[in-house]
Amino acid sequence: MPMPRVIFASTRDSDMHYAVKTPITSSFFYLEIGNRKLALLDKRDFGLLRFILRPNLRIKEIALEPLFEKAGKLKHKTSDRNKLAYLIFKKYGLMGRKVQVPIHFPLDMADFLRARGAKLVPTFPFFPERARKTKEEISCIEENLTHTKLAFRTIENILRRSKIKKNRIYYQNKIITSEFLKQEVEKALVEKGMFDMLGMIISSGEQTAIPHHIGTGPIRPHQPIVCDIFPRHRQSGYFSDMTRTYVKGNPSEKIMRMYKAVLKAQLAAMKKIPVSPAGGRAGVRAKEIYEAAASVIIKSGFDVGEIGLTHGLGHGVGLDIHEKPSLKPLSEDILEAGNIITVEPGLYYPGIGGVRIEDMILVTKTGFKNLTNYPKKLIIP
Amino acid sequence: MPMPRVIFASTRDSDMHYAVKTPITSSFFYLEIGNRKLALLDKRDFGLLRFILRPNLRIKEIALEPLFEKAGKLKHKTSDRNKLAYLIFKKYGLMGRKVQVPIHFPLDMADFLRARGAKLVPTFPFFPERARKTKEEISCIEENLTHTKLAFRTIENILRRSKIKKNRIYYQNKIITSEFLKQEVEKALVEKGMFDMLGMIISSGEQTAIPHHIGTGPIRPHQPIVCDIFPRHRQSGYFSDMTRTYVKGNPSEKIMRMYKAVLKAQLAAMKKIPVSPAGGRAGVRAKEIYEAAASVIIKSGFDVGEIGLTHGLGHGVGLDIHEKPSLKPLSEDILEAGNIITVEPGLYYPGIGGVRIEDMILVTKTGFKNLTNYPKKLIIP
Repeated sequence: MPMPRVIFASTRDSDMHYAVKTPITSSFFYLEIGNRKLALLDKRDFGLLRFILRPNLRIKEIALEPLFEKAGKLKHKTSDRNKLAYLIFKKYGLMGRKVQVPIHFPLDMADFLRARGAKLVPTFPFFPERARKTKEEISCIEENLTHTKLAFRTIENILRRSKIKKNRIYYQNKIITSEFLKQEVEKALVEKGMFDMLGMIISSGEQTAIPHHIGTGPIRPHQPIVCDIFPRHRQSGYFSDMTRTYVKGNPSEKIMRMYKAVLKAQLAAMKKIPVSPAGGRAGVRAKEIYEAAASVIIKSGFDVGEIGLTHGLGHGVGLDIHEKPSLKPLSEDILEAGNIITVEPGLYYPGIGGVRIEDMILVTKTGFKNLTNYPKKLIIP
Repeated sequence: MPMPRVIFASTRDSDMHYAVKTPITSSFFYLEIGNRKLALLDKRDFGLLRFILRPNLRIKEIALEPLFEKAGKLKHKTSDRNKLAYLIFKKYGLMGRKVQVPIHFPLDMADFLRARGAKLVPTFPFFPERARKTKEEISCIEENLTHTKLAFRTIENILRRSKIKKNRIYYQNKIITSEFLKQEVEKALVEKGMFDMLGMIISSGEQTAIPHHIGTGPIRPHQPIVCDIFPRHRQSGYFSDMTRTYVKGNPSEKIMRMYKAVLKAQLAAMKKIPVSPAGGRAGVRAKEIYEAAASVIIKSGFDVGEIGLTHGLGHGVGLDIHEKPSLKPLSEDILEAGNIITVEPGLYYPGIGGVRIEDMILVTKTGFKNLTNYPKKLIIP
């Protein structure tokens, strides 16, 4: 019998969201014991699961109220929720047994339970199956990408219809800023039931040399504009993630060379994904994909490490924007059919700028499918 | 000397956001040791703080790279980030000393550090000063409310301009749904630099009897429409939170009585806030505010507990939507000047529906200020 699993969180926690598939704003307890799945909720949220939950999940909803009263009588100096956790562990025979909890299980709750005999095993990934997307999850993410591509189209249209004057770009007689472009993207996403939960990147000029700079102020002509948009679908909770780099005007020779190298590295990395040419199962090591990209970068005369390609090549995407597998240089992950990963090489040089191109790839049994499938053009005239 | 404090998180963690006041998507280490404040970031994010951070925060940015190499040589079977944490604790003399960490400090990291001599003290609230808002924070939240009120105006305008036909409400010849109203609200918010991070509530009819039901499908005429909108300001990270209940058409006698009772309870609760009529410091117990509201509810012939008023009266709002102080019946919190709290009584009866009214209140030295200051009208003709 597998170890029992316990989560205490709201569905802001992606493991909890994966478990119940219903957004619930307050924290509650989720238990898996053998074949039983239980959600212990307080009265405000009781009924929510029944109301929205897909019947095939077969999670039993249990009201916390009877335990509230008992908890009120406990004399321990701790929070009510810790007392509830203790009563739940006792009630369901979880004391003294090994129980898996996510690594974000509250530390004070863990301490309180352990002092009373709980054997908690912090586990990551908590649901390893999250890395292998089902058909349903794949179509969620494909739909998200359709909407995200519309957002890129919006940016391209604005830039195409704009004019350069001195060191600024004007659209409908106003200076284009990062803030303006982000707002236009947000509006386009909202119309499609998506939203920018984590804060997209639309940076330009010097800012682009810092990969995570979100971008502020006027967009620079003749310099890179990095657009990295990773919105979430409100209903399903799934993310998409894609990046394009543009230049309005005439990029420098150096930026054009960087762009070509990044594009070449991306294609080389993708080609590595079908490891088993005879049509067997996927099974390439994630770091080999990284290495394929890094080697193209170096052969193209650029750097890997402190400067140049400074970050990993990609990551899984699902209910978290970064999840398994990881395509970092030291990753021990092995790609499997059903993984949805980003392939996003980039080059960053302070004083010059940055370039990044990112697609989402489905790993299949025989190779890969580019789910993004969207044009890559640096220059917007 | 106070205990050193350590956070490992991205700024999705509100304590980390409070510490660095700059959105950073990747997790990193933040240390407070005596008067020193340190942020240890990896190369991708190094420079981000310098770029955006307000100079008066005086946080020293330190690159993690030298430690990465050392961590690579450690033979422990654990994640790289746990190895980094261990090296940081050793480097900064934190082993063997009591160190405060947030309760959401990763459990596996805590276990790894403790097994090597760390004395971690899970602490909540981690920054108690977050409950006392500064002038700057107050004006952030007031600005947020201005934008949020526009969203309510949007809903009211749509409902006012709509027509009831049979059991549906039509606007521009389309059936009004929860989804439609939420999208209109989202667009209005985005224009103002805010966004619906957590998923607003616009529910109607039977759904309103479940306080956290987010609402789906056609809006019902002649029945309660609960609109609970709690958007976040993208730039500052602060939330606002406000609720109005409407009826398009003619509410039942019962709903009208519920509305009146809730409104009366809200006013009675607010009046309790100036405890010290002589003009001294605020200092009323949060649960007394709850009790003032609950007592009006009971006197009005409604219930408190399993049914009727089923939830607490309110909560602090800041970088988290729910923070200290808590206005639940068992709260031990004491109100202080500078608290910004919601006062949001509600009544919920399955089969009948729910009513909730929520304002945001600033607790002052001499009383309170209603920051929301927005009309309360049930019926939209």
